[in-house]
Amino acid sequence: MDTLFRLEQTIRERREVDPGSSYVAQLRSRGPEVMARKFGEEALETVIAALAGSRQEMVGEAADTLFHLIVLLAEKGVTLEEVIRELDRRSGVSGLEEKANRSS
Amino acid sequence: MDTLFRLEQTIRERREVDPGSSYVAQLRSRGPEVMARKFGEEALETVIAALAGSRQEMVGEAADTLFHLIVLLAEKGVTLEEVIRELDRRSGVSGLEEKANRSS
Amino acid sequence: MDTLFRLEQTIRERREVDPGSSYVAQLRSRGPEVMARKFGEEALETVIAALAGSRQEMVGEAADTLFHLIVLLAEKGVTLEEVIRELDRRSGVSGLEEKANRSS
Amino acid sequence: MDTLFRLEQTIRERREVDPGSSYVAQLRSRGPEVMARKFGEEALETVIAALAGSRQEMVGEAADTLFHLIVLLAEKGVTLEEVIRELDRRSGVSGLEEKANRSS
Repeated sequence: MDTLFRLEQTIRERREVDPGSSYVAQLRSRGPEVMARKFGEEALETVIAALAGSRQEMVGEAADTLFHLIVLLAEKGVTLEEVIRELDRRSGVSGLEEKANRSS
Repeated sequence: MDTLFRLEQTIRERREVDPGSSYVAQLRSRGPEVMARKFGEEALETVIAALAGSRQEMVGEAADTLFHLIVLLAEKGVTLEEVIRELDRRSGVSGLEEKANRSS
Repeated sequence: MDTLFRLEQTIRERREVDPGSSYVAQLRSRGPEVMARKFGEEALETVIAALAGSRQEMVGEAADTLFHLIVLLAEKGVTLEEVIRELDRRSGVSGLEEKANRSS
Repeated sequence: MDTLFRLEQTIRERREVDPGSSYVAQLRSRGPEVMARKFGEEALETVIAALAGSRQEMVGEAADTLFHLIVLLAEKGVTLEEVIRELDRRSGVSGLEEKANRSS
């Protein structure tokens, strides 16, 4: 699971390098709209894989979604740890039922 | 980070209980289309938060996205570990550049 | 087909009334993020209906998508006529092949 | 506005030609998942243009969305006329308030 934190660390480092030498730096140079779009596209492909794809396609699309989510979080100055702490807080307070109350 | 694995475990357990007593069981009873839609909606809200929301909204939407991604993976019989292993494999093989080559 | 233009006219009128008395006015009062989200949700439901729904569900989701697209265009100050003129221009210039060249 | 019906007619004709000579035929040959994904991507770009783009970008993305919506409807065997009739029926029955009641 350290993979996700290492990936986040790598993404944060790659943001600072030359856009010609890194996919992450290139995304950053194209701006937040492009990063948001890429994440949205991968999420859409995950939806489609869930309904019409194989297990292996689902694995690949979910990986793409996580990767681009971390890229987008980094752009917004949010760490994965904050997001995980939020998930922890929710399940700590009152379990998944809190989620149920919040969702409509 | 164990939070994510614990959350996945909880989600897998809640899938089996009475739909009246758990949000996850309720989602499951409504079928894969509803689970896919919920994940897609949270991803959309993450896109919007990235472009027009606060840091705190971004944290909340990313948490919702991760939660519903794990719900959707469970429905497809895919574990978070498989997804993380895929991310690991990609960065192991050739770093983020492999991703760059793969993306268009 | 005048239906679409009449619908647009109605939407533009309803934007100006009391939010308590009209769905469109209520959306407007909640801001562009909510209008964009509603449109995105209907588009997502259209994707899901295309892959896993009935013909009748597809009809309903496409109608919802068109409705919320016109709401969003009105918020941006764009008319349906401009959008249709753009489609006309594209097919006028070089047919659908222009589209093919533009898309990747 | 006849533009939309003519566009639909053209799309239906292009579905039957050689995939090498038409974007629409190529999409059809790649299957419903690809058509659904293309539509979803254009809708996502419309969301982003609404929040962070110019009027002109909004016009272009809305045009792309309509184009790919008609492509997807054709794949599902649904005509634009049916969708417009559904919009007409809704506003005929009880105006936009029916929509308000239906939406949550």
